[in-house]
Amino acid sequence: MNGQHNAPIGIFDSGIGGLLVMKQLVKLLPKESCLYFADSGRLPYGDKGRQTIIRYSIENSIFLLEKKIKILVVACNTATAHALDTLQALFKLPIIGTVEPGAQRAVEKTTHGRIAVLGTQGTIASECYQKAILKIAPKAAVLPIACPLFVPLVEENYFTSPAARLIVQDYLNPLKKARIDTLLLGCTHYPLLADLIRDVVGDQIALVDSATSCADAVAAALEGHGLSYDGEGLPSYGYFVSDDTEKFRQRGTQFLEMPIENVHGIA
Amino acid sequence: MNGQHNAPIGIFDSGIGGLLVMKQLVKLLPKESCLYFADSGRLPYGDKGRQTIIRYSIENSIFLLEKKIKILVVACNTATAHALDTLQALFKLPIIGTVEPGAQRAVEKTTHGRIAVLGTQGTIASECYQKAILKIAPKAAVLPIACPLFVPLVEENYFTSPAARLIVQDYLNPLKKARIDTLLLGCTHYPLLADLIRDVVGDQIALVDSATSCADAVAAALEGHGLSYDGEGLPSYGYFVSDDTEKFRQRGTQFLEMPIENVHGIA
Repeated sequence: MNGQHNAPIGIFDSGIGGLLVMKQLVKLLPKESCLYFADSGRLPYGDKGRQTIIRYSIENSIFLLEKKIKILVVACNTATAHALDTLQALFKLPIIGTVEPGAQRAVEKTTHGRIAVLGTQGTIASECYQKAILKIAPKAAVLPIACPLFVPLVEENYFTSPAARLIVQDYLNPLKKARIDTLLLGCTHYPLLADLIRDVVGDQIALVDSATSCADAVAAALEGHGLSYDGEGLPSYGYFVSDDTEKFRQRGTQFLEMPIENVHGIA
Repeated sequence: MNGQHNAPIGIFDSGIGGLLVMKQLVKLLPKESCLYFADSGRLPYGDKGRQTIIRYSIENSIFLLEKKIKILVVACNTATAHALDTLQALFKLPIIGTVEPGAQRAVEKTTHGRIAVLGTQGTIASECYQKAILKIAPKAAVLPIACPLFVPLVEENYFTSPAARLIVQDYLNPLKKARIDTLLLGCTHYPLLADLIRDVVGDQIALVDSATSCADAVAAALEGHGLSYDGEGLPSYGYFVSDDTEKFRQRGTQFLEMPIENVHGIA
């Protein structure tokens, strides 16, 4: 057996949102080890410039590549939107982002081809979801909506307040007239707002979560490249953080829904 | 005359908030040149860890010191709270932060010694304002309030919405019972919310702005160190930004209220 099989999956995000992708991966692939890098010292990514995000994504990728990962997961929609092409052109290993899997899932779910996409300013401005959906379903109607305050609301644990509801209503106001049937949450933070969003948009609209579909795509890619691990021993999980490790451990545990140990700060 | 006199004032902030300090400086000291560094590639500073902010502040300071500035202005409350002592111990030039001048002004304004301080999580957790106020006025009662969503509201230009009003009311709720007479805005972003805050707290409370008092302290320090410039020629202004320069130029112009040219991106 090739030694590469038991190498870890490498995952990066600007912060803790990508832990929702890792949670799905742990569920789907319980024998695989994971290394997670949270660039929390430079978050958020959503409203920063394209060149800045490309630079950060390359740095984060090299950091994980040096740890001998077998596949790289860009568990951040903004980084996927701006940098996935660059990373795939630079590095040899398989690299999976959030956008294509999310777009694929939305197209599978839609009944009338009317899909709204919520994302950060960077993700929406890049038009990545629009392009990815139209590539699979050229007749789909896509309504993109930038929701720049959703990440701060989640990061600050403020998403059950009346103000959060007003902000969600305000951002989702364009949906009223648009008769969409599917709503794609194009940011790994947004599943934490799913209950509130569901409440505002009603039960008739299908919600698609880019974290879950990204994890499915990682499992398929490992299988496709013959890189899956199904051997002996327990998996190991390690975490690297560019800001305070204790805050990551505390908040991250809520996202990952399992204890977080083995957290290393990097400067 | 010493060549140092016509060296520029160096100013750094996590983003555009510190331009409010620079605006006051330009008004007070129209002959002085300024170099402004916005670390917008790593903003916000308010909820990041102490060691991270110290590291960023040292890097920002060295960047400006290499440009031969004559005085350094830490135009960010979080950076002042965590890093001013370290910077003053490391570097030889005069270094002015926002906290002491703001505390001094609040003590001058208060009628009954009851002062509330609004700030980011980092500023409030550091207790810097509490300590600075009690050092000058040991009998003062200080009520610190962390307002972590104020910076995102300002950055996203969302501060005239009903949701912004709800968030301000929510954060300032503890003021109702506290009978304070003075409210210190301990973050350079918050003056943009001053009208809304004024509306929520009423006319009886004095509002103190740390940006204005910081600029006054810089003028006094230049005078005190014999570093003021009053010679010939027009002042020059230069800007360095660690994220997208165009976004800085556009949003910054609203803060500075004069055209921004000469903006350089740094990686």
